[in-house]
Amino acid sequence: MESPIQQYLEELLAEVQDLGSGAPYNVHPAGREPRPGDFGICLATVDGRVYSVGVADQEFSIQSISKPFSYGLALADYGFEAVDEKVDVEPSGDPFNQISLAQDTGRPANSMVNAGALAVAGMIRGGGGKSAVRRIVDTYSRSAGRKLSSSRSVFDVEIRQSDRNHALTYLLSSVGIIENDPTRALEVYLRQCAVQVSCRDLALMAATLANGGSQPLTGEQVFEIDVVERVLSVMMTSGMYDDAGAWVSSVGMPAKSGVGGGTLAVLPGQAGLAVFSPPLDGHGNSVRGLETCRRLSTDMEMHFVRSARSGRSAVQSTREISELPSRVRRTVEEAEVLEQHAHRARIVEVTGDLFFAGTESLVRAVSELDDSVGFVVLDLRQVYDAGQLARQMITGLRRQLAAAGRELVLVTGDDAPAVTAMDDDGPSGSPVTVYRGLGEAVEHCEDALLERYGDLPTATERVPVIDSPALALLPEADRQRLAELMERRFHEDGDVIRRVGQRFGGVHFIVAGRINTIATDPGGERVRLNTLGAGMSFGELALGTSDRQETTEKAVGDVELMVLTPEAIESLESEDPDLALQLWRALTRDAYTLVDRYLREAAVRLTY
Amino acid sequence: MESPIQQYLEELLAEVQDLGSGAPYNVHPAGREPRPGDFGICLATVDGRVYSVGVADQEFSIQSISKPFSYGLALADYGFEAVDEKVDVEPSGDPFNQISLAQDTGRPANSMVNAGALAVAGMIRGGGGKSAVRRIVDTYSRSAGRKLSSSRSVFDVEIRQSDRNHALTYLLSSVGIIENDPTRALEVYLRQCAVQVSCRDLALMAATLANGGSQPLTGEQVFEIDVVERVLSVMMTSGMYDDAGAWVSSVGMPAKSGVGGGTLAVLPGQAGLAVFSPPLDGHGNSVRGLETCRRLSTDMEMHFVRSARSGRSAVQSTREISELPSRVRRTVEEAEVLEQHAHRARIVEVTGDLFFAGTESLVRAVSELDDSVGFVVLDLRQVYDAGQLARQMITGLRRQLAAAGRELVLVTGDDAPAVTAMDDDGPSGSPVTVYRGLGEAVEHCEDALLERYGDLPTATERVPVIDSPALALLPEADRQRLAELMERRFHEDGDVIRRVGQRFGGVHFIVAGRINTIATDPGGERVRLNTLGAGMSFGELALGTSDRQETTEKAVGDVELMVLTPEAIESLESEDPDLALQLWRALTRDAYTLVDRYLREAAVRLTY
Repeated sequence: MESPIQQYLEELLAEVQDLGSGAPYNVHPAGREPRPGDFGICLATVDGRVYSVGVADQEFSIQSISKPFSYGLALADYGFEAVDEKVDVEPSGDPFNQISLAQDTGRPANSMVNAGALAVAGMIRGGGGKSAVRRIVDTYSRSAGRKLSSSRSVFDVEIRQSDRNHALTYLLSSVGIIENDPTRALEVYLRQCAVQVSCRDLALMAATLANGGSQPLTGEQVFEIDVVERVLSVMMTSGMYDDAGAWVSSVGMPAKSGVGGGTLAVLPGQAGLAVFSPPLDGHGNSVRGLETCRRLSTDMEMHFVRSARSGRSAVQSTREISELPSRVRRTVEEAEVLEQHAHRARIVEVTGDLFFAGTESLVRAVSELDDSVGFVVLDLRQVYDAGQLARQMITGLRRQLAAAGRELVLVTGDDAPAVTAMDDDGPSGSPVTVYRGLGEAVEHCEDALLERYGDLPTATERVPVIDSPALALLPEADRQRLAELMERRFHEDGDVIRRVGQRFGGVHFIVAGRINTIATDPGGERVRLNTLGAGMSFGELALGTSDRQETTEKAVGDVELMVLTPEAIESLESEDPDLALQLWRALTRDAYTLVDRYLREAAVRLTY
Repeated sequence: MESPIQQYLEELLAEVQDLGSGAPYNVHPAGREPRPGDFGICLATVDGRVYSVGVADQEFSIQSISKPFSYGLALADYGFEAVDEKVDVEPSGDPFNQISLAQDTGRPANSMVNAGALAVAGMIRGGGGKSAVRRIVDTYSRSAGRKLSSSRSVFDVEIRQSDRNHALTYLLSSVGIIENDPTRALEVYLRQCAVQVSCRDLALMAATLANGGSQPLTGEQVFEIDVVERVLSVMMTSGMYDDAGAWVSSVGMPAKSGVGGGTLAVLPGQAGLAVFSPPLDGHGNSVRGLETCRRLSTDMEMHFVRSARSGRSAVQSTREISELPSRVRRTVEEAEVLEQHAHRARIVEVTGDLFFAGTESLVRAVSELDDSVGFVVLDLRQVYDAGQLARQMITGLRRQLAAAGRELVLVTGDDAPAVTAMDDDGPSGSPVTVYRGLGEAVEHCEDALLERYGDLPTATERVPVIDSPALALLPEADRQRLAELMERRFHEDGDVIRRVGQRFGGVHFIVAGRINTIATDPGGERVRLNTLGAGMSFGELALGTSDRQETTEKAVGDVELMVLTPEAIESLESEDPDLALQLWRALTRDAYTLVDRYLREAAVRLTY
């Protein structure tokens, strides 16, 4: 099915196509005249989906859209302070090729006007066996996610028509802003302007900036976030020449235009936008590019004020661990201890990204927990990205909790790399407990609660089959008689006791050790359903489904079993129907104890 | 436990307190001299949590921080076009009290400098029995969430020392920007500047702007979002006088300062920040206010580029309805039809706010579903806020699906008011199906699938007890014999058949009609666990739990039952132990069929 967003872009293209004013830039190699009717729009999301309509893949010169990317490279090479000495960050209110520098320092107003871009080009050096131009083109290529190149023929015509830029370069040299050969700076600048890009390339370059500097398709970190922050800040007020305030008010996205017909805009955190349409207005901005940005800002709610409305609480819920018990089946006594002390362990479920708003709501939820909560499980599996603030604050929470004898447990999931760094110990010396799955984290809390509050037999204890809770309602003589009918079996760690698909193999009572029950989920993955301990039974489940095993049972450590085989049950039924009746009755009750537990769990789930 | 955010703010206060430069504004009533050491920081989230440190509740004059709020009132009163004719939106680069107007139109550069604010004050009229000043103070009060007032004594000293503002007012009048009595405009302006606020008030006023115009505590919509967008855009480039680019680069939040010592900053969608510290720098900005904003922007990741990194997919999962089956227990035949056709109905689970990024990922997920998916359930229960774009796009999806004979089903939950408006029919004429709960939506899809693909008996059909699946493995003579032991009972719609807490009342076989099983969740809410139909049985569950009913069973429409009472079971056990054995065996199998189903469901849940 065609996406409504694709449809919207097609309609927008048709509507904006009608704007016929403006004239293309008139400097180009013979035979490469821009076609005024060419028009393309591309929108790339931070996860790499590119919507494109119209002329999306035709190459044209990047021109001034190169400026923010070279500025980013210079900031990364030299740091903010050194670059700020050469070029300011203020909107100039001047045309792009204006010859005006600050009276005191000689600095160009910003890196988006030609003077500032020339100053930046003059700073960038070669390195690692690559020329300055090579390094610049590499940076653009890494941002676009494909190899780009600079056009020699475009450069050749541009350099013959660049008197004004020559003048600017010498002026910058005269005031010491360009420290080396001014003709070299001009050449670097004109070669970067001659890099050939498509509308699609520009959308992906914009998406790289939107994505905090990480290229959406390759995953490469092209720029660090502080560089991106600076570059987009300058683009916000100075990217579109003239009228910074009108741009922020009407579009509200950092953007950059180029006389080649390209316009690039960035919706931080969300998407990159590019437009290609050669006819320019008097300021050198693409007429259709401007209108497309205005329309998209309104129709697609991309203005920085509107798009940022996502600051709701990142905390989805806080609940007691009893609402999501681990898969370890507990004895009745253990279950009672856990029920009584469940309020001491709480799960705080967090979703979305952890920047200011998300971190604040997380910190608030944990801070406001009652002091009696000794175990705080932060379920971060739905957190995609987290900033330094989140790491600091979670470390702070951990220390405060640890100081009061309380414990912070993190659940990170398999795909939460941004958060796994949080298990850094740091100088505090109290390591944080980290699990990938929520089940393990809850199991950890349950074990800790049982150890602290339970006066219970240990997991290694034996439970003779006559003491099995499943048989508890039978008179001792009957239990004794049943035990005599059973086979004693031993298994070692990792032994498969029953395998999925096998026929009903009898009722297995665990005398000592633990058993993992393993099922296959609809995706074909093996999943541990639960863990059973001494005193519990298994194998009856096959009775429910054409006598076939639905799960695989595997020994965890040494295991001792008593098995009432199908043959023993059969002979019991013929020889002592009364006792057989009592057995089945007991098994029915045991089954319904399980059903009851699952229904209670389902009731909890239905409420959120 | 004290919040780490509170701790951070306390540390920040102590550090920034040391900045001793600057001097307080020197116009104030006798005896109300500002104390240079007073210093407070307040941070209010969009959901109304206020963190405050230092001098948070002492009142001072709002001064120029009034400007964005009066600008918002004028925009709401007259519309953008009329206000834009009087005042531009460009950063001026001039000091706040500069006398400079645009050469062609006479317009002040923006509404944040005195000239622009005077032009705005000149526009605002009384109405509804309230003076202009009253309406202005009301707007500030509604933004702060408490009644504010303008200080007469502050006004009296200000008006005696406002030669420059007098001059500006007459100049504005001379070029037609102020159309009525210029002295009246000046009085309105000086009275708005004399409104008394605390640091806490300012933080909440900022949070109102951050929250799209809705006051976090009262919930009142003080400004519409398009007004907020414009006000914050102008604050972004012109709120802090001079050096717009440096402010955007180093802080990146729309902000406004006042000579009273206040500084207000807005993190759109997330929080409002206010600082109170009287000593001012040469531009009239609070020295500690500036430094606090810079520190918070960095430390708390509040810069608009950094804070906006929350554009990950809003789609949490898409799954077949078979992974979250409805609570209607289906017959074996029905279950087979549903299993075979489950791929035709998919649940798309969406979380977070639906602005550009969220909407795009939702639309993408639905558009990319296979054409064989005839039912798309959009689970919007975790969506807090949605813009116009989301409504348009969901309407677009619905129409496209409907045109192909496919159906869109929305699940809105109880607390998703922002999304419920989406059930608007609109001009397309194909109403969208809306449910509050996911269970009902899945039930709707199951019923539709069964109707379309199943060749099954209808829900109204009778299933004689001897055909009950639970007894299917018994020979017919035994089933006949059991049927003879049962009591036939009839119930009407709404009858409570079994109530929670009652003793085991026998095994109930449904011959005709439907039963709802109702449990109480941990929060005390009644929850429908499942719906049972003809051929199914209930009541055995009490066997699992000390013979007590765990659930309440209620008739849905007319119901016919056959009940094997506890007394009948007892007499059967003594008179025909063989048959009793077969009965218990059948019930055990039936119980494990249920256990098996719950375990499979649990396995699915564990994988996400």
